[in-house]
This record gives sequence, structure tokens and C-alpha cells, in this order.
Amino acid sequence: MKRYFVLALCFFSISGYAQDQPASAKKIRNIIFMIGDGMGTTQIYAGLTANKGKLNLERFKCIGFSKTNSASDYITESAAGATAFSIGEKTYNGAIGVDTLKRPKPTIMEIAKKNGLSTGIVVTTDVTDATPATFAAHQPSRDLSEEIAAAYVQSDLDVLIGAGTSRFNNRKDGRNLISELEKKGYQFKSTTTDIVQVKSGKLIGLVKEDRVAQRKNQLLQTEKTAISILKQNSKGFFLMVEGSKIDDGGHANDLPYVTEELIDFDQAIGAALDFAEKDGQTLVVVTADHETGGLTITDGNLKTGEISGKFSTDDHTGVMVPVFAFGPGAESFMGIYDNHTIFAKFMKLMNFK
Amino acid sequence: MKRYFVLALCFFSISGYAQDQPASAKKIRNIIFMIGDGMGTTQIYAGLTANKGKLNLERFKCIGFSKTNSASDYITESAAGATAFSIGEKTYNGAIGVDTLKRPKPTIMEIAKKNGLSTGIVVTTDVTDATPATFAAHQPSRDLSEEIAAAYVQSDLDVLIGAGTSRFNNRKDGRNLISELEKKGYQFKSTTTDIVQVKSGKLIGLVKEDRVAQRKNQLLQTEKTAISILKQNSKGFFLMVEGSKIDDGGHANDLPYVTEELIDFDQAIGAALDFAEKDGQTLVVVTADHETGGLTITDGNLKTGEISGKFSTDDHTGVMVPVFAFGPGAESFMGIYDNHTIFAKFMKLMNFK
Repeated sequence: MKRYFVLALCFFSISGYAQDQPASAKKIRNIIFMIGDGMGTTQIYAGLTANKGKLNLERFKCIGFSKTNSASDYITESAAGATAFSIGEKTYNGAIGVDTLKRPKPTIMEIAKKNGLSTGIVVTTDVTDATPATFAAHQPSRDLSEEIAAAYVQSDLDVLIGAGTSRFNNRKDGRNLISELEKKGYQFKSTTTDIVQVKSGKLIGLVKEDRVAQRKNQLLQTEKTAISILKQNSKGFFLMVEGSKIDDGGHANDLPYVTEELIDFDQAIGAALDFAEKDGQTLVVVTADHETGGLTITDGNLKTGEISGKFSTDDHTGVMVPVFAFGPGAESFMGIYDNHTIFAKFMKLMNFK
Repeated sequence: MKRYFVLALCFFSISGYAQDQPASAKKIRNIIFMIGDGMGTTQIYAGLTANKGKLNLERFKCIGFSKTNSASDYITESAAGATAFSIGEKTYNGAIGVDTLKRPKPTIMEIAKKNGLSTGIVVTTDVTDATPATFAAHQPSRDLSEEIAAAYVQSDLDVLIGAGTSRFNNRKDGRNLISELEKKGYQFKSTTTDIVQVKSGKLIGLVKEDRVAQRKNQLLQTEKTAISILKQNSKGFFLMVEGSKIDDGGHANDLPYVTEELIDFDQAIGAALDFAEKDGQTLVVVTADHETGGLTITDGNLKTGEISGKFSTDDHTGVMVPVFAFGPGAESFMGIYDNHTIFAKFMKLMNFK
């Protein structure tokens, strides 16, 4: 292939935002990294259809594709998929923040913290599940839930919101991690209503795991709370937000489950974009760890939101997944590349040491 | 949704190409518009896997998604899908270069010709099939093959290469369109070997329709011939190249068929990029009319090229399809948009009247 060089720039000209220089020339202060678990191209278009022809994802101009294979398998799972993002290396399926030789490697969130940023995780599943775990823990297996929960006590995260209380206070080792976190200065909250009251300081929020119908707009509300707390650090923040249960809908071969979770995640994406537009120094990157279910859209209606589909498997599949980026540095996420290079893009854009 | 404005630029810095101004500020002289019939995200990644982990499509930085629904149906077919590109309007399934009221509308290729450009079509199927037909003919139904063939006599295309001789010289109306075209000054050739000998002038090449194993690198060779003829017009050219049979592989639920045709099309994409890199005034846009087969990748190996998959249907599906763009104006093809807006992007970039 002939050698060639590409320099691509996305300019974002936003109201209340200086228009005389490209966004890319500006300092990036914050990163909101959003992972739709199991969200391939088809899940997105199913959600767009079910949402009557529109999504906040349509607000992005910079689009790429991430190759999701792990070091051990052509088809990844969430632990290896998210560890590729968090440590910048492809690793074996099941690995949590460790490389192929099971060696702990610093995560992007640990590095952000060392560089003076605030850090946060907001998910709709157990915080000990694979995707969030890879940003704060280093374990040879995703099954080590109690060890992963214990890692959060040491993590120095500013905000942690999700489900999974029992791993913290009903443990084989008798430790009560919630008490330990409270001693460290964390505010512990167990309902969305209580979480959204928190205005500053360190926060751990562990609610009951539910589907959208029960949890309502919990993801949107708790994400907004996280941003409002994290943005108080003038050095910036790194926030990971997961639409955790799109994957569950795929595994269950349940199309309404997939589209409900996709639309819920898209609302959180909209709030991240709203913040980034106003702030002007926030990069928003949305992608997936892998596709789940081999979803096909066999019919639909963009006006009524009706949709029909078929699933080919109850497991993950190999297809590359889209990446959407907005804000300063967004142009770095164009093209087709391996999942683990997203870590390197963050490192370079933030000038992290 | 909050109003916002996005101005995005792709800079291409290429050897032998002035680097002091963005490619986007340069005049676009040529467009090579490449349609992979039935080529969704999954077909691309299946081809990348079967090709041992690499494709020329990875050379693109500017990526978008095209919403493929037609005016009549959520799931389009090739006639409505390609007519959206050729006339800039969504129309009913089966329409060839006509709007929803069956009114003929000028095609992008007819407009290019009126603006002084040379025009060409290179496909691997009958030239009377839906996709190529929509750029030169105006018929209420894709089934009117003899009428579509007759349209090519009036089209004033400079180069037409594909299959389907019988529609030209074995017709119910007794006309011999090949003789008519020769009287108009066209060189008629019936083998790839003869086609590639043509160095200038008007060319119609109609060969036997075959799969890759039989036709070898016919698409690549005939595309190169078309470019070498068309580029002689200093005012530029508009060339449409179709990877026609990716769709056939999907309808047949035959994964090796899909990946062979995908890789063959990707070789033609590579040649278009090679030309565009050297030329500096050529825009290359690659997309699909729709996805075919509801393909899922269930296993694969990026080193050996082994791949396993499942199809969910023998028909088309509704998912949005990727768009890849390279060269001056490429940034216009980022984001998510309707298929018919690709026509408007071409019109604006070329300043066509």
C-alpha cells in the first residue's frame, strides 16, 4: 500500500464558544468516555428506529470503527474489551486491568488521577461487572467480584455509581467496604433520589439493578450528578459512563430490551454532548466493547417506532463497532483501528505522563 | 436538540501534493463513486477477516453512515437505493431514475455531463441491473431491462463496462443496440482482454457475467481502463463503480461468496485511492445501497483468514450502512444522514448547475 499521511481536523463552532480557532487547538480538560456494552451498528439503528427516527448519536460528525478482537480470541467479552480501552493493550478474555501475562497495568483512570484530574464511573449494572471493573481493578479473572469491589476502596475514584451493594457489605471476608469507604470520606447513597442530592465531595452510589421500566432515567440523572461533582476540579475529569444492559438485551435475544436500553444510553449521550457543547474543553467518545446477539433488522417504521428483528446467537459476535467523537481531539477517532489504540489516543490528547 | 454547528475538515497531505493548503480548499475535478451492493458493516468486517486482517477501506479517515430506507419501504432494494444517490430523492422500491410520482429526474451523471465532465459506469453485473441503470435511465420499474438498455444509447456515457449483452442485441423489438452504439462512435468489446486495450474514445464493454473465480481481477482492470480514458478530459469525470455481487452472496447466504466479492471490490477501492492520492483533485466515496442477508460473524481468525457466519434472511435488511470518503470534500461525508443527501453533497462540492 502506498504510503500516505492523513491529518484530519474537526472544527466545532458552538454558541458561546470562541470560533476563531479550531477546537482541536484548545486544551482538552475533560473526557467523557461512554461504552454501550454490546452496541454494534445494528443495535444503534434499531434504537434509532424504535426512537422514531432520531438519536443524539446523529449529533456526532467524527466517526470511526473499533476492531474488538482480544489477544486470546477473535470474539472478545467485556473484560478483555474494556481492558483494551483501560490499559491500552489487547489481553485475554476475562482479564480485568491486567495484560496477557496477568501483570497489572495502570488504567487510564489511575493515570488521569495521577495527573490531577477527578475520576468517575457511572453504570447501570453491578460496579463489579467487567466493564467498570477494568478501569479501577487489576485481577486475573472477571469472576473475582469481591476482590474487584475491594479495589474500589483503594481506587481513589471521586464518583462511583451503579448497582451491586452485596459485594460491598455482604462478603465472605466479613469486611464492610461501605463503612471503609465512608471512613475515607465517601458519601454513600442507595437510591437515585439520594444520589442526585449530592452536590460535591466523594460519592459512592449503589442502587438496585433494574431495567429501564423500573429504574426510569437513573442513568441520565446519575450521569448529570457525576458531571456536576467532577467538573468542580479545575484540572478536569475523566468519566466513564456505561450503557451496561444493551448487552443483556442481546444475550436475551429480546429486541425491546435492546432498544429500550439503547435509547436510555442515548439520552445519557445527549446530556454529555450538551455539557461538552457548553464547556468547549470536553471530549466525548462513544463506542462499544463488542456486538451482542448478531442482531438483524428485518422490518421497521421510522414514524411509529415499530421494529422487527432476528438474533443469530445469544453470545457476542466479531464485527467491528462504531466510535463517535465530539469536541477537541475528536478527529483522532476517525478511521478504522484496534480497540486498544483508544487508550493511546486519550494519553496523547491529554498529554498524560 | 440544542442547535449547534459543525464544520469539519479532512486534510490530506500526500507526497507530490501541495501541503500548504487543505485539500478541501482545492477544486474537485473528479468523483469516483463506489457502491458495494449489499455491503453493510458486517460484510466489510467479514471481508477484512477473510483477507487476513486488512482492507484498503482502512485507508479512509472520513466515515459516515447512510440511512437506506426508501420512500415506500423501511427496507429498500437496489433500484430505490441507487436512485436516491443518482437523483437526490428517496423514491419507491423498484424505481429507476424517477421520483415517487414516476417523473424522470436528472441524474448526477447526466448533470456531470452537462457540466462538461466525462462519465462512466463499471460494474460486475448486467449493466441493465438496478444500480447502474439508475444513473442513466428513467423507468417506472427495474424490470424494464430492454428500455434500460436502450437508455444507454441516448445516455452519452463515455465508458460503460459490465455484463448483459443479450439486452442489447437479442431484443424483442429487433433493435441491435450494439450496432447503434458503434454508429455513434463507441468501441464495443466483449472480453476483459479487449477492453483493457482501449486507450481513448468512447467504450462499451459487455462481458459474460461471472463470479470472481472465473472473472479474476476484471473489476480492477476495467476500472483502471475506465479511469485512464476518463481522466483525459481536463474538465474532469464522474465514474460509478459497483461491487455488484456482494449482494448476490448475501441473497445466496453464501459467506465465501460475500467475502470473495468484498475483497474483489476492495481491490478496486485500492486502485481508486491510488489514483486519487496521485491526482489530488479526485474525491472517492464508497458506500452501499443496503445490507443483504443479515450477516453475523460468529467466529474468525485474522491471521489465517478463516471465518464463520450466519445469515438471518435471504433478503435485504434495514440497518444503516457505512460511507467512506477520501480526497477534497471528503469531510462532507462524515456523520449520519439519509442516502439521498449524498447527491446534494456531490452537487454542492462540484458546484454543479
